Amino acid sequence: MSPLSKRCVAEAVGTAILLAAVVGSGIMGTRLASGNVAIALLANSIATGGVLFCLIAAFGPISGAHFNPAVTVCDALQGGMRWRDVPPYVAAQIAGAIAGTAVANVMFGLPAFFPSHRVRAGGPLWLGEFVATFGLLAVIWGCVRFKNGLVPFAVAGYIVGAYWFTSSTSFANPAVTIARSLTDTFAGIRPADVPGFVAAQMLGGVAATALFAWLVPISKATAEAVLLPHRLPSESG
Amino acid sequence: MSPLSKRCVAEAVGTAILLAAVVGSGIMGTRLASGNVAIALLANSIATGGVLFCLIAAFGPISGAHFNPAVTVCDALQGGMRWRDVPPYVAAQIAGAIAGTAVANVMFGLPAFFPSHRVRAGGPLWLGEFVATFGLLAVIWGCVRFKNGLVPFAVAGYIVGAYWFTSSTSFANPAVTIARSLTDTFAGIRPADVPGFVAAQMLGGVAATALFAWLVPISKATAEAVLLPHRLPSESG
Amino acid sequence: MSPLSKRCVAEAVGTAILLAAVVGSGIMGTRLASGNVAIALLANSIATGGVLFCLIAAFGPISGAHFNPAVTVCDALQGGMRWRDVPPYVAAQIAGAIAGTAVANVMFGLPAFFPSHRVRAGGPLWLGEFVATFGLLAVIWGCVRFKNGLVPFAVAGYIVGAYWFTSSTSFANPAVTIARSLTDTFAGIRPADVPGFVAAQMLGGVAATALFAWLVPISKATAEAVLLPHRLPSESG
Amino acid sequence: MSPLSKRCVAEAVGTAILLAAVVGSGIMGTRLASGNVAIALLANSIATGGVLFCLIAAFGPISGAHFNPAVTVCDALQGGMRWRDVPPYVAAQIAGAIAGTAVANVMFGLPAFFPSHRVRAGGPLWLGEFVATFGLLAVIWGCVRFKNGLVPFAVAGYIVGAYWFTSSTSFANPAVTIARSLTDTFAGIRPADVPGFVAAQMLGGVAATALFAWLVPISKATAEAVLLPHRLPSESG
Repeated sequence: MSPLSKRCVAEAVGTAILLAAVVGSGIMGTRLASGNVAIALLANSIATGGVLFCLIAAFGPISGAHFNPAVTVCDALQGGMRWRDVPPYVAAQIAGAIAGTAVANVMFGLPAFFPSHRVRAGGPLWLGEFVATFGLLAVIWGCVRFKNGLVPFAVAGYIVGAYWFTSSTSFANPAVTIARSLTDTFAGIRPADVPGFVAAQMLGGVAATALFAWLVPISKATAEAVLLPHRLPSESG
Repeated sequence: MSPLSKRCVAEAVGTAILLAAVVGSGIMGTRLASGNVAIALLANSIATGGVLFCLIAAFGPISGAHFNPAVTVCDALQGGMRWRDVPPYVAAQIAGAIAGTAVANVMFGLPAFFPSHRVRAGGPLWLGEFVATFGLLAVIWGCVRFKNGLVPFAVAGYIVGAYWFTSSTSFANPAVTIARSLTDTFAGIRPADVPGFVAAQMLGGVAATALFAWLVPISKATAEAVLLPHRLPSESG
Repeated sequence: MSPLSKRCVAEAVGTAILLAAVVGSGIMGTRLASGNVAIALLANSIATGGVLFCLIAAFGPISGAHFNPAVTVCDALQGGMRWRDVPPYVAAQIAGAIAGTAVANVMFGLPAFFPSHRVRAGGPLWLGEFVATFGLLAVIWGCVRFKNGLVPFAVAGYIVGAYWFTSSTSFANPAVTIARSLTDTFAGIRPADVPGFVAAQMLGGVAATALFAWLVPISKATAEAVLLPHRLPSESG
Repeated sequence: MSPLSKRCVAEAVGTAILLAAVVGSGIMGTRLASGNVAIALLANSIATGGVLFCLIAAFGPISGAHFNPAVTVCDALQGGMRWRDVPPYVAAQIAGAIAGTAVANVMFGLPAFFPSHRVRAGGPLWLGEFVATFGLLAVIWGCVRFKNGLVPFAVAGYIVGAYWFTSSTSFANPAVTIARSLTDTFAGIRPADVPGFVAAQMLGGVAATALFAWLVPISKATAEAVLLPHRLPSESG
């Protein structure tokens, strides 16, 4: 396994590129779509899916490519990683997410940070985030349990769909949610609405993890090998 | 093989997420597309394809990821699963589909159930459903017979296409058809039109199954192993 | 290897579904796109790519999933299949293509056959077909030579792109070209323009085949095994 | 390994088809999109991604499928290829790119070459190219280091996303940048703006290469085998 410092850098860099993609494609989509929000969201969802795929493919073997505190916490819950690694992972994810948002804003000639005024709150949207994160974690555990090699495809496919089928456009990620409060563009969320989203996400993630603990039980002893298969080439030779 | 209870829960949860995706992305697409139905259907088809992919990848090893009574019945027809498992599978699929529709409706601030008024009937559309389900089953049997690992990709690719090339927008699934009668939104179908669609689907599925029984014959003895490769990690170690 | 009769049925059924997809999604796209041709072509290209993928995945192990006389002839040219199998393959492809066009027309409430009036001719478009088929065959030979398992992904990706980057919207297939002359819809081509397209396609295919014969030489003895790897499960057990 | 002459022809042909796709789909998209630039860019990005995928799949085993001087130089930097092979690779890439642009222009009835007047310059766009190429090389090294077979998927997914999330629409390739200065269409860039883009690209590529040299160190001795796995079938048998 890669040392913790390298795994955290991988999480930070990956999450930064992810946020640059989410925020940047939202800005580009809005600028070009002549007011048709569906076309902007189509661009936003396809761009996010494409980038998510390649980031998981590239960084997965190093850090597991969580990029998401909900994934990290739920992975620890079922014995997939040590609890003491959780805080540095989450810190790296949040720091990377904030940096990536700044990069997107600056690339498009905007201030690095300017808080969003977009209201995203209320029961239907919180249900949306619960469903979005429940589905995301269910998909991840399903693929990871059977080591089918399809995680990057499945997560990307899921997120492209979830941008459309959840009323909240599927943030499904606390680090992403925090970072998106710092851009007053297409992808933004009002800072005051962040806690509600994060709470719904964590509930959804834990529910999916509990479901899979029953559906496909896994012993603590083998959890780490099965759940976070990261290995460096220098270790295998 | 996973116990029947777990397989049925997997079928129900997967079908629920599928319906949430089909119905939810239809609602979102319609709301955002400024009246351009092609853009709404583009979003609806891409979202459905993405979600179908990840659900098959995640639940396939548990239950076979049928999510579709036509698949389950045709699988039993050729010896791929026991007939006595068919009723619980189909019940789980229908229950899950109805629940997923309710989730989509509620996520978007609509009543959990409100019957559709969208007319979908007549020879051309029934031909559409026959063709849609014929093609779907042909694709599944082709991939499964040769165990090429491409089922999730192939089914997703097929459905994205079939939403566009069949005049009925390819329901191709009796459980989906029943559930879509309970939402008066983009994806809806008038309850009175459900039986015609279901009949055409079953005919199409049986026709494709018969074609492959001739094209690539398979003995009853090996059918189960070839057709429904589900295995739990705890069984292999 | 599967008997010739089954391989030809596979070619016919596959090409029929392909044409239903090409013609049907063109009709649906035009009807829904409110006059924005780019949106119609986006739907048409994505639907074609999705269906092409799943057909190659499902029928490839049976017949090679050519669905295209240019592929069949070029495969024979380099020793990948016997010349005496070429005429039945091509006949099956053309018959399937015509049947599939009729299915699409009837699904949408149109006459089974009604000749197109869409003019597609002239140097730039013929260059388009040359380039389209050159690229298609180059992609196929590149993937097949190294048996990388990526043919269905590569062909689908190529065609989605080629619909857009060639001025002729990439027919790249003589059977498809003939069949598309029988529908006066989005995908149509005037019957008088078919020969020019077919000639350009064959030239492009032969050029790509010659290029790969030099780039990655292959002995006649091993050509069949390398180029058309079809095998039935009953043969391997 | 294939002889240098064949590898260079593969690089030239592949880069030519890539540029035909980038430039051609831009022209088609603009012509059909009724002034909605987002739809044109959607077509342009999806077409580029599809073609990039299949070219990497088809030509990767021959030449590595760089199609990009930034990739070639960075590969040499970390010992993945010999420095003396770099100039012929880069020359082939630039020549192919220019030829492909001409093919696209002529296919659409335009002059083979006519310089672009599209201004693309300034800090935000240069940051865009830095980010675009940093991300591209990070994705490539991540996938290649672990030999996961996902390079064609990851590069295609990345570029589809990067067209949208970088303010410069992600040229990320010096040969592509030079060639796109020769077409005054959607994909064009003013010749005077080429050097700024190329400089930003090289900086981004080197930064990503340095990051991965630290993240996943690789010895010079094994670099060539790991980084450019090209092999001909005639060599293995």
